[in-house]
Amino acid sequence: MPYPLTLSTMLQRNRLLFGGKEIVTRDFSGIHRYTYADYNVRVAKLAGALKRLGVRPGERVATFGWNSHRHLEAYFAVPCMGAVLHTLNIRLFEDQFSFIVNHAEDAVMLVDEDLLPAVEALAVAGRFPTVRAYVVMSDKKAVPPTRLSPVYPYEALLDAETGEYDWPPAIDENSMAALCYTTATTGNPKGAPYTHRGIYLHALAICAADVLGIREDDTVMPVVPMFHVNAWGIPFAATWMGAKQVFPGSRPDPKALLSLIRDEKVTITAGVPTVWMGVLQLLEREKYDVSSLKAIVCGGSAAPKSLIEKVERGFGVPFVHAYGMAETYPIVLVSRPKSYMKDLPADELYAYKAKQGTLVAGLEMRVVAEDGSEVPHDGKSMGELRLRGPWIIEGYYREPERTKEAVKDGWLCTGDVVTVDAEGYVQIQDRMRDLIKSGGEWISTIDLENTIMSHPAVAEAAVIGVPSEKWTERPMACVVLKPEFAGKVEGKEILDFLATRVAKWWIPDEVAFVDAIPKTSVGKFAKRFLRDRFREKRFD
Amino acid sequence: MPYPLTLSTMLQRNRLLFGGKEIVTRDFSGIHRYTYADYNVRVAKLAGALKRLGVRPGERVATFGWNSHRHLEAYFAVPCMGAVLHTLNIRLFEDQFSFIVNHAEDAVMLVDEDLLPAVEALAVAGRFPTVRAYVVMSDKKAVPPTRLSPVYPYEALLDAETGEYDWPPAIDENSMAALCYTTATTGNPKGAPYTHRGIYLHALAICAADVLGIREDDTVMPVVPMFHVNAWGIPFAATWMGAKQVFPGSRPDPKALLSLIRDEKVTITAGVPTVWMGVLQLLEREKYDVSSLKAIVCGGSAAPKSLIEKVERGFGVPFVHAYGMAETYPIVLVSRPKSYMKDLPADELYAYKAKQGTLVAGLEMRVVAEDGSEVPHDGKSMGELRLRGPWIIEGYYREPERTKEAVKDGWLCTGDVVTVDAEGYVQIQDRMRDLIKSGGEWISTIDLENTIMSHPAVAEAAVIGVPSEKWTERPMACVVLKPEFAGKVEGKEILDFLATRVAKWWIPDEVAFVDAIPKTSVGKFAKRFLRDRFREKRFD
Repeated sequence: MPYPLTLSTMLQRNRLLFGGKEIVTRDFSGIHRYTYADYNVRVAKLAGALKRLGVRPGERVATFGWNSHRHLEAYFAVPCMGAVLHTLNIRLFEDQFSFIVNHAEDAVMLVDEDLLPAVEALAVAGRFPTVRAYVVMSDKKAVPPTRLSPVYPYEALLDAETGEYDWPPAIDENSMAALCYTTATTGNPKGAPYTHRGIYLHALAICAADVLGIREDDTVMPVVPMFHVNAWGIPFAATWMGAKQVFPGSRPDPKALLSLIRDEKVTITAGVPTVWMGVLQLLEREKYDVSSLKAIVCGGSAAPKSLIEKVERGFGVPFVHAYGMAETYPIVLVSRPKSYMKDLPADELYAYKAKQGTLVAGLEMRVVAEDGSEVPHDGKSMGELRLRGPWIIEGYYREPERTKEAVKDGWLCTGDVVTVDAEGYVQIQDRMRDLIKSGGEWISTIDLENTIMSHPAVAEAAVIGVPSEKWTERPMACVVLKPEFAGKVEGKEILDFLATRVAKWWIPDEVAFVDAIPKTSVGKFAKRFLRDRFREKRFD
Repeated sequence: MPYPLTLSTMLQRNRLLFGGKEIVTRDFSGIHRYTYADYNVRVAKLAGALKRLGVRPGERVATFGWNSHRHLEAYFAVPCMGAVLHTLNIRLFEDQFSFIVNHAEDAVMLVDEDLLPAVEALAVAGRFPTVRAYVVMSDKKAVPPTRLSPVYPYEALLDAETGEYDWPPAIDENSMAALCYTTATTGNPKGAPYTHRGIYLHALAICAADVLGIREDDTVMPVVPMFHVNAWGIPFAATWMGAKQVFPGSRPDPKALLSLIRDEKVTITAGVPTVWMGVLQLLEREKYDVSSLKAIVCGGSAAPKSLIEKVERGFGVPFVHAYGMAETYPIVLVSRPKSYMKDLPADELYAYKAKQGTLVAGLEMRVVAEDGSEVPHDGKSMGELRLRGPWIIEGYYREPERTKEAVKDGWLCTGDVVTVDAEGYVQIQDRMRDLIKSGGEWISTIDLENTIMSHPAVAEAAVIGVPSEKWTERPMACVVLKPEFAGKVEGKEILDFLATRVAKWWIPDEVAFVDAIPKTSVGKFAKRFLRDRFREKRFD
């Protein structure tokens, strides 16, 4: 029957079946704990409060907050009332922040109490003209001193509501439910719009046993921020399946995360590689019971093989390597070994786990060479990963030109250059724009960087292409030494180190020692600054 | 992006990732075994052959066969070429059979070799005027002597194809992919049309860890016939996830099923209660290694608590009780205990497992009393179960009048009267038409029958309502005694047995001993024949 795929269905099932299950937040004043029964009443109250603030269907309601139960309330209240949940990255530079709020034309902004200063500075300067009201998320019923105006305390707004809300009976499944901006390498941030249909299908797909397998008896803790592609869609799936949810709240450090895993008996947790590096370091010094864990999901950037091995040994639980991006909402690939790989030697097994993985059910992929042909699945041939499927975005929000660049013939061009092996495991080799073309062949800078970074004296390394008349481009390595090695290592030592580890023609023509590798606001290498700095260079 | 939800996506992922995995059939001449790589080539060949036979998009291609790899080939070839897979029940009476083929206007019919006689009889009598070609499914390359015409051997048709097929690029997700007729209590069988979208979403939903949790490392054996609501959609899900599949072929008996479980290391199997009763009986006499099993799925009719307990003890694996019907494609409810129920006393736990279960993610339900209000979830109040969701049918195939009776205000009226407990577990009390209304209250005939059947002398029992001026209706029990008790038990003994087991006003006014309870072609009690037989009876 023509039944729309919307977030309302998920919420309804949660209300029907899971009233007794818990949601736990490491809140500003300790551990906050309530049930889905309480949650459902508060979601209805929040929708009522937003309606009272004049929010209309299709309007954007922004959140500026940590992972918390209040953030989860907005996750369902806003889309189920027909409005759009716009999650703002709390770590943006001022100009990006104000650009995004204005481009999205946010009508109301929900702000965590401890993040007020960042918002206040811009709001008071008149840089958020579309925002009609600010709501402060905190357990206090009064607003702290602030120059925001008009401003309301979240809890007092909810107290004024009955908890009965007349939800719209049928939301169009293709309407926008959420919006999330991604920083671009050049130009302003781009908005990725997510439809009810896309979020619904992604949530169902990640509940499949071979993806995350979220189920009622799980306790799920997303460490990945709720402002980052809806915490990879995990809160939606967890609410739908009735799993217990744990939110690590404001500025979670490894100690907070390990305490929550131990105390709340977390079974599935998810975050970027750096989170697990930090957690591992603490776990090596202090003992925590992490035996409840059955999966550590890791994505956002490629996890090195060494990290995967350490996590599996340190935690004794499967490390689930995942790949995706804001444009793919996000999960596209998951690296789980197939049934017949389980007896492989550890080295081969970890080689599979370190790849980005195989395609999640529901999507279609192709890997395309420069001439437009599909590359063979030989683990060597490189091509751009292109995707289509119901949770891949149709285009950027209000950006027809940039959409045309990214979506061609109905396929999203990820800009990631990958190989595919005979088993269908995809491995990222580079970003299209970072790839170095030398003598008609491609050199993967990521591979080269990882090899350089395995040198004991190296802290960080980025490889860029430098024009060469003979070879088109040749690689140049920009290397940051660990403090204790500063000034004590020469370029030749790095090149000798590479000689036995990479193909001869991959060895950089030069090693430049630099103080730091510039990074984007989300912590990725911003190689364009390096290319700028060395723009006069030529290797001929 | 506007990406249609079709079976083509499932097949494509299978082709990309699972070429090395196996499909096993207990075939006419032993165990047949091949890989998904072989399978995919043959699916393309079958589509080519059907196209050569003139099958056009939207036309019905009928199958008349057991569970086998050839049947699975038709499962994808037919819908992915844009035609409709019409699975015919091989156990129908002649009149129903010919009605269905003509109502569906089947263009081509694929028939298992050992089922030819049933088809031949009707075809030769000119009762299948729409069927343009018959294809005999067998491992022989020549057609056995038959009067069907024109007739082609399946394997020879495939041999003539290249294995390259130009699949249609975009099938409308709302177009019909499959069709299955269900016998009606009155009137002709009704066709339930299944869309690509419905099958896709159902397949994804049953892969959720809390439903069947089908994954790549599973070995799945559907015992439920592939002609019965697409074997509950399991072959689609298993192909999508890359699970190994095992098909029990022609006339599988308990010995065949247990041998397959042991030899192929089946992890998930599914069938109706009578299958598991037969298997259990053999398992009590003979030893089979069934340790590979992780779930026995049981649906089609309610499984008695005693069966569930016996299966869990006999197999040592979870019994997953499921509920659905042809109109709901089919899985709607699954009875798995929630996380916090696991420590309940065995009695309470099995009481939950014996219920039909909780709502699968993706659907919506309501339970409606006679006055149209929703009944409280108290485990006592009865009402009709109504459903809506993306894999619930929109209506019967070419039956606008009967659709209006079944689908009201966008909700499918299941005709099942149920209770819902505080945890959301649904329990069937009766079919609407079988329910007995006595003194303003409802009596569940199923409950009453189960209690009567727990008497050691009783083989079968059906309870029907008999008109009563004072009470509107009163129950009458029709009882079949076990052969060894025939003529040795009186009605009073049955009534005395009930006195301590059911409410006083539920006790039947009369017990009639009969030779057999009439059944429908799918083995359910056909109470209308009993009501007919006793139509003169009055209790006043």
